[in-house]
Amino acid sequence: MNETMLALRKLRPESGFVPQEVPIPQIGPNDVLIRVEKAGVCGTDQHIYTWDAWAQHRIKPPLTIGHEFMGTVAKVGAAVRSLREGDRVSAEGHIADGTCFLCRTGEAHICERVEIIGVDRDGSFAEYIAMPEYNVWKLDPSIPDEFAAIFDPLGNAVHTVMAAGVSTKSVAITGVGSIGLMAIPVARAAGASSVFAIDINPAKLELAARLGADETFLANDPNLVDAIKRRTNGDGVDVLLEMSGSGSAIDAGLRMVRNGGRAALLGIPSNDVQINLAERIIFKGLTVLGINGRKMFETWYQTQALVKSGRVDLRPIITHVLPFKEFDRAFDLMKRGDAAKIVLDLKGDLAK
Amino acid sequence: MNETMLALRKLRPESGFVPQEVPIPQIGPNDVLIRVEKAGVCGTDQHIYTWDAWAQHRIKPPLTIGHEFMGTVAKVGAAVRSLREGDRVSAEGHIADGTCFLCRTGEAHICERVEIIGVDRDGSFAEYIAMPEYNVWKLDPSIPDEFAAIFDPLGNAVHTVMAAGVSTKSVAITGVGSIGLMAIPVARAAGASSVFAIDINPAKLELAARLGADETFLANDPNLVDAIKRRTNGDGVDVLLEMSGSGSAIDAGLRMVRNGGRAALLGIPSNDVQINLAERIIFKGLTVLGINGRKMFETWYQTQALVKSGRVDLRPIITHVLPFKEFDRAFDLMKRGDAAKIVLDLKGDLAK
Amino acid sequence: MNETMLALRKLRPESGFVPQEVPIPQIGPNDVLIRVEKAGVCGTDQHIYTWDAWAQHRIKPPLTIGHEFMGTVAKVGAAVRSLREGDRVSAEGHIADGTCFLCRTGEAHICERVEIIGVDRDGSFAEYIAMPEYNVWKLDPSIPDEFAAIFDPLGNAVHTVMAAGVSTKSVAITGVGSIGLMAIPVARAAGASSVFAIDINPAKLELAARLGADETFLANDPNLVDAIKRRTNGDGVDVLLEMSGSGSAIDAGLRMVRNGGRAALLGIPSNDVQINLAERIIFKGLTVLGINGRKMFETWYQTQALVKSGRVDLRPIITHVLPFKEFDRAFDLMKRGDAAKIVLDLKGDLAK
Amino acid sequence: MNETMLALRKLRPESGFVPQEVPIPQIGPNDVLIRVEKAGVCGTDQHIYTWDAWAQHRIKPPLTIGHEFMGTVAKVGAAVRSLREGDRVSAEGHIADGTCFLCRTGEAHICERVEIIGVDRDGSFAEYIAMPEYNVWKLDPSIPDEFAAIFDPLGNAVHTVMAAGVSTKSVAITGVGSIGLMAIPVARAAGASSVFAIDINPAKLELAARLGADETFLANDPNLVDAIKRRTNGDGVDVLLEMSGSGSAIDAGLRMVRNGGRAALLGIPSNDVQINLAERIIFKGLTVLGINGRKMFETWYQTQALVKSGRVDLRPIITHVLPFKEFDRAFDLMKRGDAAKIVLDLKGDLAK
Repeated sequence: MNETMLALRKLRPESGFVPQEVPIPQIGPNDVLIRVEKAGVCGTDQHIYTWDAWAQHRIKPPLTIGHEFMGTVAKVGAAVRSLREGDRVSAEGHIADGTCFLCRTGEAHICERVEIIGVDRDGSFAEYIAMPEYNVWKLDPSIPDEFAAIFDPLGNAVHTVMAAGVSTKSVAITGVGSIGLMAIPVARAAGASSVFAIDINPAKLELAARLGADETFLANDPNLVDAIKRRTNGDGVDVLLEMSGSGSAIDAGLRMVRNGGRAALLGIPSNDVQINLAERIIFKGLTVLGINGRKMFETWYQTQALVKSGRVDLRPIITHVLPFKEFDRAFDLMKRGDAAKIVLDLKGDLAK
Repeated sequence: MNETMLALRKLRPESGFVPQEVPIPQIGPNDVLIRVEKAGVCGTDQHIYTWDAWAQHRIKPPLTIGHEFMGTVAKVGAAVRSLREGDRVSAEGHIADGTCFLCRTGEAHICERVEIIGVDRDGSFAEYIAMPEYNVWKLDPSIPDEFAAIFDPLGNAVHTVMAAGVSTKSVAITGVGSIGLMAIPVARAAGASSVFAIDINPAKLELAARLGADETFLANDPNLVDAIKRRTNGDGVDVLLEMSGSGSAIDAGLRMVRNGGRAALLGIPSNDVQINLAERIIFKGLTVLGINGRKMFETWYQTQALVKSGRVDLRPIITHVLPFKEFDRAFDLMKRGDAAKIVLDLKGDLAK
Repeated sequence: MNETMLALRKLRPESGFVPQEVPIPQIGPNDVLIRVEKAGVCGTDQHIYTWDAWAQHRIKPPLTIGHEFMGTVAKVGAAVRSLREGDRVSAEGHIADGTCFLCRTGEAHICERVEIIGVDRDGSFAEYIAMPEYNVWKLDPSIPDEFAAIFDPLGNAVHTVMAAGVSTKSVAITGVGSIGLMAIPVARAAGASSVFAIDINPAKLELAARLGADETFLANDPNLVDAIKRRTNGDGVDVLLEMSGSGSAIDAGLRMVRNGGRAALLGIPSNDVQINLAERIIFKGLTVLGINGRKMFETWYQTQALVKSGRVDLRPIITHVLPFKEFDRAFDLMKRGDAAKIVLDLKGDLAK
Repeated sequence: MNETMLALRKLRPESGFVPQEVPIPQIGPNDVLIRVEKAGVCGTDQHIYTWDAWAQHRIKPPLTIGHEFMGTVAKVGAAVRSLREGDRVSAEGHIADGTCFLCRTGEAHICERVEIIGVDRDGSFAEYIAMPEYNVWKLDPSIPDEFAAIFDPLGNAVHTVMAAGVSTKSVAITGVGSIGLMAIPVARAAGASSVFAIDINPAKLELAARLGADETFLANDPNLVDAIKRRTNGDGVDVLLEMSGSGSAIDAGLRMVRNGGRAALLGIPSNDVQINLAERIIFKGLTVLGINGRKMFETWYQTQALVKSGRVDLRPIITHVLPFKEFDRAFDLMKRGDAAKIVLDLKGDLAK
């Protein structure tokens, strides 16, 4: 093994990423070193690429970016028991402290001291990444590389759908970016009796329909809430999956849920949101769920079950698989809204 | 309206049913009178037809038989608010007292003073039946008559599946009689990631496969439990739906559920069952659910959602639709195991 | 029986109530007529008394006010089965339509077509009130009249506590008006391991301590959230019961709940509330519950169990029992903040 | 530190234990060495002491016995992060594999490859014990040593009570051995509105009453089930906690639970149990829970909350604290039924 590797880095507080040769990470007794093969590009990566307000506040350069990936175990620490060199793996990118109340009661995904790869510590847009054994997910041989590379965002969709509970229920999804799109086949496979997709972007709605949405709606349709109610016997949908982070979508979403329904919020508003708590939540007897990350590892097992069984097919979502060196093109495609999900391929001749 | 009607009756403590002209039932202020159009034939009806030990113990002739049906409202009581003459309806056949603790906390389906139509009071194999408004289910126009006529047993399947919770889970069904068969498309539509059907009857297993079972198994296969475990990563299935009532199936079923899994028992054993509680339930941390009837009316809404959305197609299960007067043939077909579900048609010229 | 009775009425769109002789209500076949004996005075009644913006918007005079009460059944409708003349009763004041999806799935308390007595139709500050049999609650003989008269608001507290789930958990209550105060012994009896009471009014906090709060805090203490975190191992409380309706209390409340915790909102903000959804709910993985009314009749059984067992003692909360004719004094005491809960006695010589 | 220590050992397949000098255990990078100070004596230990059929089948001598204990951390492994020398601790005695589906989804307590200290590997009746960091529970300073030493069985009681869910509910406990006794104050503190204790031993029932049982019943009273039903409005209790393992108690227990109620089974029958599944579980719509161990570490946090808050007081249960060397007397007291819970003190001069 070489002593250095290529990594995609944010070196300075400015836009763009820079490929750089850096030392291959050292591993401790409970860690494994993973040779990265495919890596998904996330909206978060794009925030860091463009160096927006959130990124400026959160990211401390220099840092290797990337948190969605799959690859092969290259080395295991002395105390590692469940993994071996050569194992094909993905990994949970939220590294929790493992010792707090939340970690010890099945809620490590909301550990207060969590570190996220590619955000708080070096990430997966690199030839190698070191991960605690605890975080590594051994892949079923039936799962294709491209799907495995995006188990992280797919897990967000699965966690949201499963927290809301959709079996036999009607579901509205506000915001069909890549995770919202994934939520469509996931909700159907998890038992939703109808799925309504809502977005401002007609192209995304077309993709939503291909992915199994029963009906699609433009978010700025002034009759949107009435239209949803008409399709649900006047009551409203049982479940809202909010994946836009937009204040107006949240308000419309809460209006279109029936009394006693459930609303799972995954989209992150960039500002405070003004809410008519009395009319939207209290009188309606709503249950509102804040959703963060993925459950370790219940969500991963659910995700595997959905993909392995063939109930969820991600092919329509992965619009591009690009060589690693074309990362600038990837971020350009995303910026222009021309891509749903892009996967980078790190297997080949990386730097050339 | 005439003053009498034709009804299929158990007149004496002996096998068989007798068509008889009886008075059309009177209705109280909170009741409706329903013109029966289609009626499902149930295993319970067959027990009464053949006059077996259970029937001899439970049934008090003379009695009009039948509890699965759909029809049209012919008359409404003075205090009825939600129904009108001409409404197309099915009905919940468990008439609960409506005033006890269970009825007032959403568990009317297990009310201790329940009366079941066709068992404890006159049933639906008749031109007319009187039902409390509370029990009547107004049918969505998209639901075909044949499906509506068997909402009662379909509701058993839905209640079992939803009580167990199958979303993203692996499911084994022990016993695929008519309700077990219905549970297959229901479990799939409700989100099961895999469904294994088990029975002693190869013909039923063939039907199970057509209805969407991922794999089928003969109940007397000595390697059954191992075979199931091999298909579930060595752990066992997440969920057992027990629909046979057989002691050996219950034992095998409990063995094939994973630790921490859930077992929903709908099949009714005719005798006590010997159970290794320590190994089968306690050490495994299992949750075992006794299932009875259908929830009023959560199950009915779920059933409607599944059928209306097209997620559940009952056509392969309804093997026969027979004219009412061919009831003897219906019971003969069932006895010979040549039918899955038989629906009687009461619309035509009944007695001839 | 006379043909008229005394009732406390809002006759015109202005402040105050007027006692008036009105006809005794007629009852239908499913109704009962109740002789009111004791009636609780609620904050809602005070809004109507003072004729504030909410009241002007919602109330259509002339109307008999009042919704918390107990009394004796004076007459039963022809189809009533579970009640008799002379039965000692209270009643659920939310009259749901009984036929909608919500009513038929155990959520009648959030029926969209609900009518509330004393708000949407004539209420209980009167010698007699007519109620549907469905809404009437037969009282256990062990429950004192004063307690029975306030089962409605006590039920709000019980519903909030039980929806949140407090068994072995730490609980913060923001706002200890009369329902917030009731929530203290209810939370303790329901299994809370610690109860923190928060209010702007030191007198209410003193009463909170007497009712069993483990510790009390002034809402305007700038270190409030830190103080709560210090008492909960740095994590925050498991459960927030929000009973103030104040925007700042809601924000503080959401900050003091631990990641993964639950917040039940009962207090009704009079305006929109600005919420940092990302930091307060989404990243924390919170569950937020809108709470309205009481479950019919699960909450009533729970309330009865708590009071009957002696686990909840309401005596410190009922600060005044006044003769009916002193209703003006009751509203004056409430306005001055000198009362927790006032019960009016209608048994004696009413009008003098 | 010495290189050897005193341990209480089963050396040969015969009754009794033998104190023996053995090497102090070595620890790996993720382990801690604990100086044992107080250790609880369990019924399991007594089975091993008397060398009954279960012990002969399960135990492979030579083995150090004991699994309930508290002590002080004497040494930590190189990779241990959350513990230091001198920390006062107890520990979860079920050592799960940490890598299987169950361990990774919050159900390590039912891991199929679990090893139990004092049963499958060396236990805590010794001066020192080595434990994985994962299993160690750091004690709150407010918890007395004696209580901390029995967090393991107390955790069984807490896990059973919390799995059943007792908040505002009526509870029957069949079998008040030491865990059944602990379940009484636990159920009360967790919110039970009434607790009925049932046993064949009047002395245990007396202790049950002192611990807070609302009423006690002899198990062989022929009117037992009727008596319980009379105290629960004819319905039966909401919750059964079965802690006897006796077939007749299980049958009586299932009969005394109301329709739709919950039965948590902790007691381990030594043989198969004959159950009328139809009448006891299926028609009643019961939920039956197999209970094993304690949840890691949700139960531990709940247990701590109950003890720390003072809601659960264990003093009446700990009938004896004996010097370690009097272990034979401890087993004799238990055999004669003269003790509820015995704690051994290992702090002093051990061998003399």
